[in-house]
Amino acid sequence: MRLSQIAEALGLGFSGTDKEIGAMNTLEDATASELSFLSDKRYLSSLETTKAGAVLVTETARQTVPDGTAALVCEDVSLAMAAATALFAPPPVDADAPAPKIGEGSVVDPRANVENGAVIGARCTVMAGAYIGSNAVIGDDTVIFPNVTIYRDCRIGPRCRIHGGTTIGSDGFGYAHTAQGEHVKIWQNGNVVIEDDVEIGSNCSIDRAVFASTLVRRGTKLDNHTHIGHNCDIGEHCIFVAQVGVGGSTKLGRNCVVSGQTAFTDHLEIAPFTTFTARSGVTKSIRESGKVWSGYPLMEHRLWIKLQAKLAKLVKS
Amino acid sequence: MRLSQIAEALGLGFSGTDKEIGAMNTLEDATASELSFLSDKRYLSSLETTKAGAVLVTETARQTVPDGTAALVCEDVSLAMAAATALFAPPPVDADAPAPKIGEGSVVDPRANVENGAVIGARCTVMAGAYIGSNAVIGDDTVIFPNVTIYRDCRIGPRCRIHGGTTIGSDGFGYAHTAQGEHVKIWQNGNVVIEDDVEIGSNCSIDRAVFASTLVRRGTKLDNHTHIGHNCDIGEHCIFVAQVGVGGSTKLGRNCVVSGQTAFTDHLEIAPFTTFTARSGVTKSIRESGKVWSGYPLMEHRLWIKLQAKLAKLVKS
Amino acid sequence: MRLSQIAEALGLGFSGTDKEIGAMNTLEDATASELSFLSDKRYLSSLETTKAGAVLVTETARQTVPDGTAALVCEDVSLAMAAATALFAPPPVDADAPAPKIGEGSVVDPRANVENGAVIGARCTVMAGAYIGSNAVIGDDTVIFPNVTIYRDCRIGPRCRIHGGTTIGSDGFGYAHTAQGEHVKIWQNGNVVIEDDVEIGSNCSIDRAVFASTLVRRGTKLDNHTHIGHNCDIGEHCIFVAQVGVGGSTKLGRNCVVSGQTAFTDHLEIAPFTTFTARSGVTKSIRESGKVWSGYPLMEHRLWIKLQAKLAKLVKS
Repeated sequence: MRLSQIAEALGLGFSGTDKEIGAMNTLEDATASELSFLSDKRYLSSLETTKAGAVLVTETARQTVPDGTAALVCEDVSLAMAAATALFAPPPVDADAPAPKIGEGSVVDPRANVENGAVIGARCTVMAGAYIGSNAVIGDDTVIFPNVTIYRDCRIGPRCRIHGGTTIGSDGFGYAHTAQGEHVKIWQNGNVVIEDDVEIGSNCSIDRAVFASTLVRRGTKLDNHTHIGHNCDIGEHCIFVAQVGVGGSTKLGRNCVVSGQTAFTDHLEIAPFTTFTARSGVTKSIRESGKVWSGYPLMEHRLWIKLQAKLAKLVKS
Repeated sequence: MRLSQIAEALGLGFSGTDKEIGAMNTLEDATASELSFLSDKRYLSSLETTKAGAVLVTETARQTVPDGTAALVCEDVSLAMAAATALFAPPPVDADAPAPKIGEGSVVDPRANVENGAVIGARCTVMAGAYIGSNAVIGDDTVIFPNVTIYRDCRIGPRCRIHGGTTIGSDGFGYAHTAQGEHVKIWQNGNVVIEDDVEIGSNCSIDRAVFASTLVRRGTKLDNHTHIGHNCDIGEHCIFVAQVGVGGSTKLGRNCVVSGQTAFTDHLEIAPFTTFTARSGVTKSIRESGKVWSGYPLMEHRLWIKLQAKLAKLVKS
Repeated sequence: MRLSQIAEALGLGFSGTDKEIGAMNTLEDATASELSFLSDKRYLSSLETTKAGAVLVTETARQTVPDGTAALVCEDVSLAMAAATALFAPPPVDADAPAPKIGEGSVVDPRANVENGAVIGARCTVMAGAYIGSNAVIGDDTVIFPNVTIYRDCRIGPRCRIHGGTTIGSDGFGYAHTAQGEHVKIWQNGNVVIEDDVEIGSNCSIDRAVFASTLVRRGTKLDNHTHIGHNCDIGEHCIFVAQVGVGGSTKLGRNCVVSGQTAFTDHLEIAPFTTFTARSGVTKSIRESGKVWSGYPLMEHRLWIKLQAKLAKLVKS
């Protein structure tokens, strides 16, 4: 899409050299053919160094836009950004995709619903009622159980097992907000990438990224009812016990152990080899590896044990 | 159904003028062609003023039944009421419904399962594996993703998005209990109504009402794994982060923000513009708008912060 | 499979009389045609009395293996046991099963996905998009709602109702761990047995047992988003409110009431007629019947009330 067309669609003034814009991305990751945005002053330093082809900014921030990046000036960047994401949203099904490819030795049940453009590897099992979206890719030797839903463009690695009722690639939960209290959808134009040897229990939800990919790295095992928000990056060989929730863009290092009903807020970074006991409420990043955490608010497990002893004493007093 | 037939089916005595009874309802909402019940003395004042055509009551409460309302006297009103709901329960599929109607410009995948009597608006997308029950109504421009289940008689507004694996209209969780500790089903004969511009994440469960409707009002956005019990009324433009649960008949005002893993017990009323931080446990109604709440038991957020500071001091002492 | 073949597949030495081994089981439950294992010294007394045909043990424990039980000596019993489970894992679909049997008066929607070997009783309703696995058994008068998934070999009793999106028989969450931090699947070769008159809400997950059966006994009612781990035994006439999770092998007695968002760790035993208030965190067995429990860590409800009063005072001080 031409930048001038985007500006017109958003009702924004535009002058300067027109260019082709193929997608949206963050200030840090955007390339010369991508549109980005400054919706929070905290990222002003990222604006200074962005490689984006164009950015949505307020009048105030315009001066910080680097040379070579076009500025689309708007009053409310969040709302303009949300409107822009709609321009890049693909339809739920890719009507132009070629017939699905199915690898040698795979058993795709004729009652499975496989869209055009899907690519299924060798020796896979895709069971009745499973849905494989347009251009989704399933690695070799992977088993997709009944009534699993894999949205378009998602990628599942080899030797994975995805259990019944799980949904991979549903929209991340993102909205801009009007002054009247209405919520304007930020379209989720990324995908989900599941690496090798991942097992995902039943009725899990892994949301697609707003841009780029939500990632579950190789060897990780997720128990039932796991929720993973958009743009998370779950490290290798993690273990998630049931009913865990992870807020958007949170990143876990390798070999984390996350016990049942634990939840993470968004935009955290968790060091590798971290353990969370049951029902931890994680609202801060963890920099040091190998520790055990508990409680909400989160504290080191040994302190949580101490706190519970104090509370037990309090209740007896 | 004739009232005399209902009495006979329940093994209850009946004398007086017979009448046609079409449904059941609460004392407050029942009309002259509906059957109601007094299962809890707390509602005795509602019995005095009910417009119900007939009521199930104990011998003691009989004298309070207003003129024009027939009394069906029973020993255990809850069990009689449960038995009565079975008389009005429709079958899972309406065998007599006409062929589904599909509006102009809609794409209903032939692998979607649309029952007779369903009415799908214009420019909708109904994807493979989605189930649209008998007489369900889908508004214009709505997208139903794969493996969504919409039970019979439910209504979805225009411009909604319902994500994969979500179930709308499953039975509310209601039982009467025998002296032997068995649970007798209260049939859930109502439906679910989702208004305009609602987005519902993946693997959510929204239960149908016992009578009338469970309601999610326009502009509300629900993240993955949301559970909404029967007869809830979720206000306009609310935001529910993932893994929230709402007990039956709880009513939220507009623009509430409900953070992840929060839960509400049943029969609460929450003022508009209320915010709940993550994992709030809400067991009381909130009358005043615009406040922020936390914790379980619930307290104002500023008190919760103070409590956590005290506990942090306690653990260091 | 011959024991010598198992030893060869696992790369373990084997001498002595060869025998036919048909399955794996725990030391306590294994029969002369089953293979067991000692993965934890705590079960050494069970090894002494096991009736297993063969056991996986370390060199140290070899001397405790009773006469008549063959010993397969290995370095890491957990890893060897995981590898052995793979040898007994049936494929997701039984290709050799006969056509499904459907009882008189049952309505099985032609758009339901019923595998060969399934046996559906009389007067059942199996709705569009429901999946009934190979050799699964559905009792008389049971209703399976759309997009339910019932894995192979699971058994559902008569007069049950299983709501949309629920998955029964997905793999239990069990892995052995390598020194490099990788997780090796313990194949879940058991099934799920749901007894009579059980109602299961929408989007629940009930995992199949590693050996034998995960059990939900008659008359129990489970609300939406319930998670039940492998090898649990949920007693008769229990009530589970929404979003409850139960860890593997936990056993509840009859008529327990489990309020919303409560969670249990694994391997607990809960006395009958126990009540848990909302969001209890149960990490210890309960021996005495009829009590009410709350909180995490769990305490008697009256103490929890007292603790909350103390905390309320603390926050005011």
